[in-house]
Amino acid sequence: MAERDFIARLAATLGTDPAARGFADDAAVWMPPIGRSLVFTHDVLAAGVHYLPDDPPSDVAWKLLAVNLSDLAAMAATPAGVLLGLGLSAAEDHAWRDAFMAGLGRALKTFDVSLWGGDTVTGLDRAVLGITAIGWVEPGKALGRSGARPGDELWVSGTVGDAGLGLAVSQGKAPYNKQLLNRFRRPTPRIALGKALGGVATAGMDVSDGLLIDAERLATASGIGLEIDLDAVPVTGAVGLDDVLARVTAGDDYELLFTLPAGTIPPTIAGVPLTRIGRAVDAAGIRLRFADTVVPTPQRLGWEHG
Amino acid sequence: MAERDFIARLAATLGTDPAARGFADDAAVWMPPIGRSLVFTHDVLAAGVHYLPDDPPSDVAWKLLAVNLSDLAAMAATPAGVLLGLGLSAAEDHAWRDAFMAGLGRALKTFDVSLWGGDTVTGLDRAVLGITAIGWVEPGKALGRSGARPGDELWVSGTVGDAGLGLAVSQGKAPYNKQLLNRFRRPTPRIALGKALGGVATAGMDVSDGLLIDAERLATASGIGLEIDLDAVPVTGAVGLDDVLARVTAGDDYELLFTLPAGTIPPTIAGVPLTRIGRAVDAAGIRLRFADTVVPTPQRLGWEHG
Repeated sequence: MAERDFIARLAATLGTDPAARGFADDAAVWMPPIGRSLVFTHDVLAAGVHYLPDDPPSDVAWKLLAVNLSDLAAMAATPAGVLLGLGLSAAEDHAWRDAFMAGLGRALKTFDVSLWGGDTVTGLDRAVLGITAIGWVEPGKALGRSGARPGDELWVSGTVGDAGLGLAVSQGKAPYNKQLLNRFRRPTPRIALGKALGGVATAGMDVSDGLLIDAERLATASGIGLEIDLDAVPVTGAVGLDDVLARVTAGDDYELLFTLPAGTIPPTIAGVPLTRIGRAVDAAGIRLRFADTVVPTPQRLGWEHG
Repeated sequence: MAERDFIARLAATLGTDPAARGFADDAAVWMPPIGRSLVFTHDVLAAGVHYLPDDPPSDVAWKLLAVNLSDLAAMAATPAGVLLGLGLSAAEDHAWRDAFMAGLGRALKTFDVSLWGGDTVTGLDRAVLGITAIGWVEPGKALGRSGARPGDELWVSGTVGDAGLGLAVSQGKAPYNKQLLNRFRRPTPRIALGKALGGVATAGMDVSDGLLIDAERLATASGIGLEIDLDAVPVTGAVGLDDVLARVTAGDDYELLFTLPAGTIPPTIAGVPLTRIGRAVDAAGIRLRFADTVVPTPQRLGWEHG
């Protein structure tokens, strides 16, 4: 399929929002909601780096959108539209592009987001897929990583480490388990939770590279330390310390990690369990406990890119 | 240089706008100007496709920003900020990244645009570089391709085909000529002209793939035809019909092509010559004339991607 045909089909099937102008112009035009701050993020997934080349293309499309919307959720923003930047190789043949487009359409509909435009490049050695996501937030309600204060309590949504288990399933290293596989391939951005945390949480971010490494980033940005009770961390299945350490250093969960002033009851979002897993302290760094015993912090806290 | 170090250095040197939040959060937050429509575009350049792998990295950075700002200019928008999406290979070593970053910094400053954030991926087989550019325009003043009406006059900025000559220089197929080389490697987005055309021109776009192919796209989007006087097209140097045909089918000029109601005097922008090169007519398609003679429309109108 020639690039122009692919774009024409994208426009016809997915570019139906007026802001997209039918992909007929050089850029999208959008009237933002009055009195809102805008939130922008851009994340890239590369075949063989962030997903496996033989992952279903509809799942790749889902994940590409989900990881970007997760960044908006982490800022307490409401998603509005996205731009695509697709670099494709010969491996992304007609069937792949069709399935990708269909999957992207379903994901856009699920998350109520519009496709506004983008660019497609062919002839690469492997797929490099980018999305820019645009959302909005009430001024002053954007979440950030730097607002946690000593005494705040540390919370996390969902269960931690499921995506790492799903990765093992997708690599054939663990028995087939559709639910865990979907946690890896089709993560759920915590959009409603993120919005509810705006103006409530003191700091927040999404867990993309591993609970511990992301907690360390939040702690560093806030100039505090974090004590984490590993036995409180919500995980799938009954496990011991070694298993928990594997879960909290696995990436791709896209749950929200956030801090609340002590005693604050977090917002209730249907289907999204929230668990208090620790607290912010003065002394910098991450400190771990399991069954009331100090646990040495592992050397590797999660995924380090580069 | 590890990805995290590279991003940290990008943030420290270029991410100084408050909207970037020091690259410390999951996304950028920006308060848009009140009562303006926002304009978004995303363009990707791949090494070996859109630029030569041994082009100077500072020129690659310049071009990456310029082609995106050219899309904003084509919509009559004022640029505000950009997000980077850098996919890098081993070929983009420490020295390359340094030079790219320095060049990007100079280009951002030249065009008065802020770097708000982005994502970097390493370990690819070749560089795939994306930028999302965000700008604003007064409501109703965004230019588009679809507004040309029969009787309108067709105008173009600058000179046409210089970038194609510069490409030949960069490939060693033409004698060294710094000015033409720069027209290929360091195009100038016509931002001031684009802004001045908002609410004045009936249609407009930037010439990225060749004057003829882009004129055909404008004609198709507007549901009109275009007659082009090839001897009126501004080109560098004294040339005959064959040379002019080569110029008007060469890409990468990033001049603006636009239509004005007959007799309208275009805005004056210092240093940007404007030339009337034809007119819009009822009958669809592109018709060419040279020295009062009809010229057959060439098979190949410009760069077709895919």
